[in-house]
Amino acid sequence: METLKETEPLAEGTRLAWTDVRAALRFDASGLIPAIAQQHDTGEVLMLAWMNAAALDETLATSRVVYWSRSRRKLWRKGESSGQIQRLIDVRIDCDGDALLLRVDQAGPACHTGRRSCFYHRIDGDAVEITGAPLIDPAHLYGPSGS
Amino acid sequence: METLKETEPLAEGTRLAWTDVRAALRFDASGLIPAIAQQHDTGEVLMLAWMNAAALDETLATSRVVYWSRSRRKLWRKGESSGQIQRLIDVRIDCDGDALLLRVDQAGPACHTGRRSCFYHRIDGDAVEITGAPLIDPAHLYGPSGS
Repeated sequence: METLKETEPLAEGTRLAWTDVRAALRFDASGLIPAIAQQHDTGEVLMLAWMNAAALDETLATSRVVYWSRSRRKLWRKGESSGQIQRLIDVRIDCDGDALLLRVDQAGPACHTGRRSCFYHRIDGDAVEITGAPLIDPAHLYGPSGS
Repeated sequence: METLKETEPLAEGTRLAWTDVRAALRFDASGLIPAIAQQHDTGEVLMLAWMNAAALDETLATSRVVYWSRSRRKLWRKGESSGQIQRLIDVRIDCDGDALLLRVDQAGPACHTGRRSCFYHRIDGDAVEITGAPLIDPAHLYGPSGS
């Protein structure tokens, strides 16, 4: 199908071919789509990162989450340096096909700072509060180089 | 501050000035930042949309979520047509300042299709399953034009 507009009237439980829906995904001008990672059982939003088509395909094939690193310009197999992998539970696509929600099982911290979630700055009026403490010292996550 | 790298070593509970942190937000080349809306009590991820600086400022000032509509190229006061507003609980900023997590209280459906969440296509092997049913007929959300 061309766009997910076609699926809007469909009843709950309707099943479609993934190859058809995949054709309607809207990657941006850089070939990327934002992907939210949510811990499947607690509901905690862990991070937002980006996937290209290859990252999505590999994630679905291996059930281990792979992103596209925009800074390193290569596939980023989450946990390949830190050991803190994300096991995929399932992927949800939004109504217009331009965002993904990954339900995952995250081992340890999702954040490179050693915190469980990347969203650890909470705006509180005129202030911002740091809301998370590292579960693991980031120097231990990435070895002595600390990067 | 220039980047949120400076806040990485800070202990939980540390408070910073919002004006300082705000200067380190990384809007993209179009002046936008992705914002995830999560229902604050159930943890449900409702949608992903985009904010520019004006949308974020108005959201914080009014506690009612305002996005930037990329298709209509204007501020989108969520619920202005449908009545299904998002009341802001708080905003969380991620580790590198390029994504926002909005904890909200969503009245009724978040999705323009009348479904609670926009993420209603679940990939299941070679298939995609429609996982949500409209809470409200979208024709009633937006009036007789249905758009």
